[in-house]
Order: sequence, then C-alpha cells, then structure tokens
Amino acid sequence: MSLVVDPAEAAAVAVSSVGAAPESEAVAWRHRHLLDVDRLSGAELELVMRTTDAMREVLARPIAKVPTLRGRQVTILFYEASTRTRVSFEVAAKNLSADVVNIAAASSSVSKGESLVDTVRTVEALGAQLLVMRHSVSGAPYLAAEVFGGSVLNGGDGWHAHPTQALLDLYTIRERLGGESQAARSRAGATTEGLLAGRKIVILGDLLHSRVARSNIWTLTASGADLWLCGPPTLLRGFEAWASRSSVAGRRFQVTTSVDEALRDADVVMALRIQRERMAEGLLPSLREYAARYGLTRERLALARPGALVMHPGPMNEGVEIAPDVAAGVQSVITDQVTNGVAVRMAVLYLLAGTQVPA
Amino acid sequence: MSLVVDPAEAAAVAVSSVGAAPESEAVAWRHRHLLDVDRLSGAELELVMRTTDAMREVLARPIAKVPTLRGRQVTILFYEASTRTRVSFEVAAKNLSADVVNIAAASSSVSKGESLVDTVRTVEALGAQLLVMRHSVSGAPYLAAEVFGGSVLNGGDGWHAHPTQALLDLYTIRERLGGESQAARSRAGATTEGLLAGRKIVILGDLLHSRVARSNIWTLTASGADLWLCGPPTLLRGFEAWASRSSVAGRRFQVTTSVDEALRDADVVMALRIQRERMAEGLLPSLREYAARYGLTRERLALARPGALVMHPGPMNEGVEIAPDVAAGVQSVITDQVTNGVAVRMAVLYLLAGTQVPA
Amino acid sequence: MSLVVDPAEAAAVAVSSVGAAPESEAVAWRHRHLLDVDRLSGAELELVMRTTDAMREVLARPIAKVPTLRGRQVTILFYEASTRTRVSFEVAAKNLSADVVNIAAASSSVSKGESLVDTVRTVEALGAQLLVMRHSVSGAPYLAAEVFGGSVLNGGDGWHAHPTQALLDLYTIRERLGGESQAARSRAGATTEGLLAGRKIVILGDLLHSRVARSNIWTLTASGADLWLCGPPTLLRGFEAWASRSSVAGRRFQVTTSVDEALRDADVVMALRIQRERMAEGLLPSLREYAARYGLTRERLALARPGALVMHPGPMNEGVEIAPDVAAGVQSVITDQVTNGVAVRMAVLYLLAGTQVPA
Repeated sequence: MSLVVDPAEAAAVAVSSVGAAPESEAVAWRHRHLLDVDRLSGAELELVMRTTDAMREVLARPIAKVPTLRGRQVTILFYEASTRTRVSFEVAAKNLSADVVNIAAASSSVSKGESLVDTVRTVEALGAQLLVMRHSVSGAPYLAAEVFGGSVLNGGDGWHAHPTQALLDLYTIRERLGGESQAARSRAGATTEGLLAGRKIVILGDLLHSRVARSNIWTLTASGADLWLCGPPTLLRGFEAWASRSSVAGRRFQVTTSVDEALRDADVVMALRIQRERMAEGLLPSLREYAARYGLTRERLALARPGALVMHPGPMNEGVEIAPDVAAGVQSVITDQVTNGVAVRMAVLYLLAGTQVPA
Repeated sequence: MSLVVDPAEAAAVAVSSVGAAPESEAVAWRHRHLLDVDRLSGAELELVMRTTDAMREVLARPIAKVPTLRGRQVTILFYEASTRTRVSFEVAAKNLSADVVNIAAASSSVSKGESLVDTVRTVEALGAQLLVMRHSVSGAPYLAAEVFGGSVLNGGDGWHAHPTQALLDLYTIRERLGGESQAARSRAGATTEGLLAGRKIVILGDLLHSRVARSNIWTLTASGADLWLCGPPTLLRGFEAWASRSSVAGRRFQVTTSVDEALRDADVVMALRIQRERMAEGLLPSLREYAARYGLTRERLALARPGALVMHPGPMNEGVEIAPDVAAGVQSVITDQVTNGVAVRMAVLYLLAGTQVPA
Repeated sequence: MSLVVDPAEAAAVAVSSVGAAPESEAVAWRHRHLLDVDRLSGAELELVMRTTDAMREVLARPIAKVPTLRGRQVTILFYEASTRTRVSFEVAAKNLSADVVNIAAASSSVSKGESLVDTVRTVEALGAQLLVMRHSVSGAPYLAAEVFGGSVLNGGDGWHAHPTQALLDLYTIRERLGGESQAARSRAGATTEGLLAGRKIVILGDLLHSRVARSNIWTLTASGADLWLCGPPTLLRGFEAWASRSSVAGRRFQVTTSVDEALRDADVVMALRIQRERMAEGLLPSLREYAARYGLTRERLALARPGALVMHPGPMNEGVEIAPDVAAGVQSVITDQVTNGVAVRMAVLYLLAGTQVPA
C-alpha cells in the first residue's frame, strides 16, 4: 500500500510512516472505485478508519500538506450544487498536493447535451486520474466507472448513495463513542465490526429521499449498531420491506414512526435535512407541522442517553428538522463531522490512488 | 510581527527583511479581523502602507511569490458577484503561497437556506483560516467574526464598508501625492496622519449606496485631507448630519450638491459608480441627466488643480459617471488602484495572519 | 527560444532539452498573441507541432509537470460556457506550473456593464500575463490584444476563429497519418507544408456557424491537404465565394452538398456539432432529417478509405451529426484530440511566454 509518486520523495511522505496499515496486517485496499459502501468488508472499513486517523494527524500539523498525490489530477465534476462536499474534496486533494480541476456542470457546456459517457471520456483525456462526481441520477457514477480509466468517487448520486458521508459519520461516531478503549483496540488490530455492538443509533427524518441514510444503513449495520430509522410514514416508504429482507442477511435495523420509541436511550441521533420541495409533492403538510412532530428539540433529545451524540449531514434547516439550541449544543458533533469529512476524503483518495498502476 | 510558517523557510521570506516594521518602531498589528477601517489608528494605517510598500517590491520580482502563507487556507466566500475584488484577493493569497478556496454563494448550496452562522462554522471546519467575505447585508462580516475562529476580512458588506478599497485608495493617493518627499518622510518614520493635510479630495456621485465612500471617509479624514462629498441631493441623504457629528469628533468633511464648488482646486477626484437600478427607485431622473449634471468630464476636471488625480473604484459606466477620455487620460490612476489593490490585500492578509496563534 | 524563468531552474526545464527547436533551425516564434492561425507560416506551424511533441513527452511522465511558467499568471476569461477548452487551458497552464485565475464572465461583475477594454485593463492590472479569452463576438480578442500588455490567446470568438482547436486537429492528423515516416521527416527538418499533400480531408456539417472550421481551413490548406467542405446548402452559405477567392491565393478547397462525393476515398472526416437553435432559425427542417441526410454513419464512413480518421471537436450530439458507433469506433481519434489539445496549449503558452520581455 505504498503510494510514493517519486522515490526521491519517499522520506517526505509522512503518511506511510504514520502507518495506516502495519505490515502484520493482511488487509489491503482492492477497490478501484468508491461507488458505495456496500462492498466494503468490516476489515476494509477499519482500514479506512485507521487511514483517516493518519490523515487527522496530517491536518493537525502547522502546514497540513503532504506530497503524496503531487502531479496527480483530481477532477471534481458536480451536476448538483454543493458547498461542503465539493470544498471538502477540494481541500482533501490539495492537502495531498494533487492538482484540482473543478467543473460545475450546471454552468458548463455539459448543459449543451453531451452524454455522460462522452463527458467522462473527455475529462479523462484532459488528464483526470481521480474523478469525484455528484449527479442527480442514481447510478450515474456506476456508468462513469465503466468507461473511466482511473478511479471514480461517488460524491452523491440521486437518492442512492453518499459513501464518503457514511464513512465520515462512522469515523465521527467511532471516535466519540469508542473513547480510549477504542483507540487501544484499534492499535491491537480490532476491526470496526462489533465496535458499535449494542449502541442505539437513530436516523431521523426524510429517509425516503436520503442517499446519506442509505449509505449509513450499510456501514452502521456492518458495525453492529442497533439502528433505528424514524420519520413520518410518507418519508419511510419501502424501508419496512428493506428491513425485512436485510434481517435475513444479518443486517438488522428497526423502522418506526414514533419519535419517542426511536429516541429512548439512543446513543446517537442523526437528523436529516427536510427540503421545502417535499410539501409541494404532498409528502408533508407543512414544515411547521414536521418541526412540531419530528423536529429534534431539547425535550426530545432528553429521551436519549445522557451525552448522546447529535449529528446532521448539513446543510441544516434550523428550526425545522433540528432546533438551533440542539444544533449548537454541547452534544452536537456537527462541525466535527465536517472536519472529519476532509480527513476521510484524504484517506479515500489516498487508498484509491494506490490501486492505480503507475504510469 | 514575524510570520515565518516554517523556520527553515526564514531565509526565503523576503518580506520580513524588507522590513515593514523596523524594530525601532513600537507599532504592532493587534487586530484579528479587518471589518472596517474605523478602528485603525494613524500609526496602524501607516503600518499597512509600509507593509504594502514591501509587497509592491515582491510584485516587481520576476516571480512575484513568497512562501509566507504556505499551507494556510484562504477561503473567499462571496454572496455578491465580483470580478476585481474576488480576483484581487485570490491573486494576493496565491502570491503569498496560500491555498485558496473560492465559494460563489449564489451558485452554491448556500442557496439551500443554511444560516450564515452555520456556513461560517462549516467553512472553518473545512480548514479556512482567513475568510474573505462579501455580503449584500451590512454588518454580515461582523456576525461572521463572532463565530469564526480565524480572521475575517470584509470584502464589502451592503452599503456599509469596503475597507481594503479604502486602504488601496489611500495608498494610491499617498504614493502619487507624496512623491519623493513622502518616501523620505516614510523612511524617517512619519505617519500617514497629516500626510494629506490641506489636500482637497472629492468623492463624486452616489454617496448614499456606496460602501467605498463610507470607508474612504474614515481613512481620508484620519489622514487630514480636506474632504468633499458631492452628488445629487437624493444620493447625499444623511451625509450632512454625519458631517455635523463628525466635525465634533475632529473628523471634518464638506457636503455639497455643487460640482463646481467641489472640483475647484481639487487634488483628487474620485468618481463613484452609478447603477441603473437607481432610476427605478426614483432617485435619478435618467442616466443621461446624471451624466450631464454630475459626470466627470474633461471640462469639469479643468476646474481642479493641474495634474489632479482621477480615481474610480470600478467597474465603470463610461459616459455616465465618468467620460471615457477622462478615464483613460493621463491624470487617471484607475489601473494603479487595481494593482495597488493586490499589494494592499497581500499586506492585510500578512498582517492578519501574524495575529493568529500558530497551531 | 529559452524560457527559463530562473537560471537556477535551468536543469529542471526538460522542455528545452527535449529540443523543440534545434539550433540548426532558423525558425523562431515571433508572435506576441495567438488570435488566429492565418498569420502562421508553414515553418511556424511546424514549430508548434514539434513543441507539442515535446509537451507530449512531458505528459507521459509520472508527474506531468515542468516549472517553465512558475510565477506567471494565466487568466482564463470566458464569456461563453465551456468545459473542454477552459479545462484544457487550465490543465496546460498548471502543467507548466503557472498560476491560473478563472473568470466566468457570465456569472461575474463583468455583467455589470463594464466595457471589454476596461475589463482587459483590469485583468492586466491584477497581474495577468497570458490572457486566454473566449467571446461570443467575432474579433473581440483582437480588441483585447490592442490594450493588453501581455499575450492574448483566442479560445474561440464568435463564428470567427478557434486557433488552438485547429492546431490540435492538425497535430492529431499529422500524428496519425504521418506514421513512422512522418516522425523521420520531422527529425530531418521537414515542414508541415506538404505533409498532408494529396490527403483528402472532409469537414462535414454546420460550416456556417463554425469557428473550428474557419481556423481549420487555414491550417489544412497550408499543409497541402485536399480539403472538402460538405453540408446542407443553408449551412454552407458564402463558402463557395471564399473558395473561389482562396484558390487565387493558392489555398484550394472544394465545397459540396453531396455527402457521397465528399466522403469517397477520404482520409479524414471531421464532423461538426449541430446546435438545436439552428432549427428555430429556419436553417434546418429537423435534427432527424439532418441526421438522415448528413449524419456520419457507419454506412457513409464506408465510402472513405479503410482506416480513415473520424474526428469531432466536441461536445457531440450523438445520433445527430455522428452515430454513436462511429464516435466510439476504432477509427475515432476524438479522445486523442482532447489529449493533444492539452499538449498543444502547453506548447502555445510556452511559445508565447517566450516572447515576453522578462520583468
């Protein structure tokens, strides 16, 4: 798993010495793309977590840069508006000294009707080696991966998947709930699997439209969490059936429309963004009613365990799905999620780049 | 006031050797943010001017780069369209070797309704250490400064303030009016205060909506200039009262609707941009009438002293507030303003970064 | 033709050692701007081709970067949406280690009505040394070149010219048709002139609105190709007259509305993009009819010589001007065009920067 782009730089690549993967460990990264988290084994999730630990150490330095990806081209092709995910990937790539090309598809000639396949081929011919892509159509990055010669990273596709968000959420929970003992276990080679065993984690809100939730279901069930999905019935459609099927495959999660049942004794509560458009679609009577019945308020949070973590993938509609005092309260780890997002994306870019055949 | 990010680079950081602040001088930069110029003392203004002198020397090199801010992240968050100010900050930051992240809020997920406070917290969690911000609401950068852990630089807020524009205007006037003797005085430790004593400076046009004018009033009166504000009565509302109050505090300026009175024997004439929207608001009968009565033409400029400076913050509506031959004439220092803007912003980024506690 | 920005870096500048211009050769680059290809002599075209060969070698390295333009500022000012050309120039400039400033004029304050001349003066005052510009008005870059102190590169102006596209097309054809013998001739000092002698090259489609076609006409006739222009009569208006005039000047090309006549025994077929807007303008009955009568299908391509090259400047409307199986077929060099575009733009930036007086 060495990713030294130039032998002469070996000494400078601190990441390798930080040791994401000790030699005694057999786990190696074998995926060329990161399209979703559903194919990642527990050991692979653990590898991402430990590589992220190394990247957090890089971020803590006065100059948070390593030359690992110097001369590599990371292209960020976003067909939907985004600040945090786009900037997070950009900062992650620059911290690894990659060259970054931003393409906001809405305002580019992509709107001239060129097919996705042609755009991906063009972007590769322009030098892209790692392609970060967001698209409103579920599955679009899978199509891109079929034609792209480098690595595709899914930055969010339709309602389907948002793998780096799930990884940063897992990292944040693991860091906060694992405590000292977790770090010790990690050094001892423990895997993420079982780390969250018995921990009650709630995802609250608009499950139906959430790629964040879908990816989180994979990683959190893989980690042994006692996962609960909660929201209004119109925004939970299909999840009961999924839960039944998953249960057979050993991935268990509960589905409920009762906030009280979901939040009682929870260790983690993750609120999802409610979009105004849902009202026009007849899925919600009003944002005010949603806030009254499902909003994460201080009163509701009191049902959870003392010190339970409050999470949100952002951007927040404060006063709707989450109360401002909860969002800014001591239990909130929302800004930690953002910072961990940079470290996780550095880790993923690093791991994927390592699978590429050197030119 | 050393800002060497890595001891090994000390030799390369020419700025420190150029000597913005000789050791014999007691003035140190003590502001974490640059929100407006109203808190800057005469000595502090002088410190900015002399640091800008050093940055001008950097700009004159074949490779106009110094490693001063290497590894620092400058985020440029603009809620209003801008070319010159946005690019000026970007070039300034890159010349200091900082990493630059651009966020055009109009086309980003900021439009999804996230609060300003949440956006600022997110931007910080993404690594921003210096945040340059433009916002249509007066005071927005002050709110940002309350929650941001690094330094906020106001790149223009509503009608309120545009501090780097005022500083580049001051630098341009000082450089052109001071001449040799000014440079000598500067070396001798003279302050900006009194440097413009007796110099008649006119700001002409739409004062009412101008953040440029409001910030310039502070720096120019602090420098002892004989300052005149001139425009149609509808675009001067409130300035008479301000002039009365300021006079008590020792900051004197005149307000007049007479172009002839204002321009007579002026040393500097700064024309402000007139926006078409003002007509819809009933503040101007027509752009043609404005041009006829208040436009800076060659005839009007002849009322000023020979060689009087012509300035404009840009972008210009040529033929409206300024005649094309005046804008491109020998007395125009308009492109000097742009170049000095890069140097002033390098100076300000440098001074603010120096107040940050090293990580 | 040395462009070593710092003597200490001489050893690192591999380009010079790759030898774009051996000393035995008298040809030097003498143009400050690249506005179109019509002023380039055959020897100058050959110089661009050979410099591009050197840049291709740089692109083949594990780290495709040279420090040639370190500290130089390349500003990309685009008044029209673009992905491939904008990104291609950006990647080319970054590969040469230049600092790149992107200005998308549609979303910037340029829309505030500032004149083009003022914008160009401002961009220069902000530090631009090489200005890449795309504008919807034919001739706009010529106006920019009159006031800009550095070098202007036309990235496409109206229907008029797209010189770097013509150069990358020429490079791609030369590379593919020349084969081994071409490389040998090149080493022996042969010029591009005559290289394509007797080769039948067809440009097929909407000639009328195509700046790509207009620039290609110059370079392809200069190279001795047997050039044919083919399309519906409404999209060929004026080219007959041009062909007559050019013939007198020694630049010969044929104009025909017969696809069969054009494609028969062709060595190269370049399909041009058809825009939907042409129907509204009454120039085309329907895209379906265009596809049926002029689309480049496998059947039509069979009229050409075996192995004839298929080209397209992109972005493609697959199923309209070109069939998907032809676009993705073995004869297609469309992605080669994109990659060669980066190399050609590196070459052109390098050659133009060399004409600038060192600061």
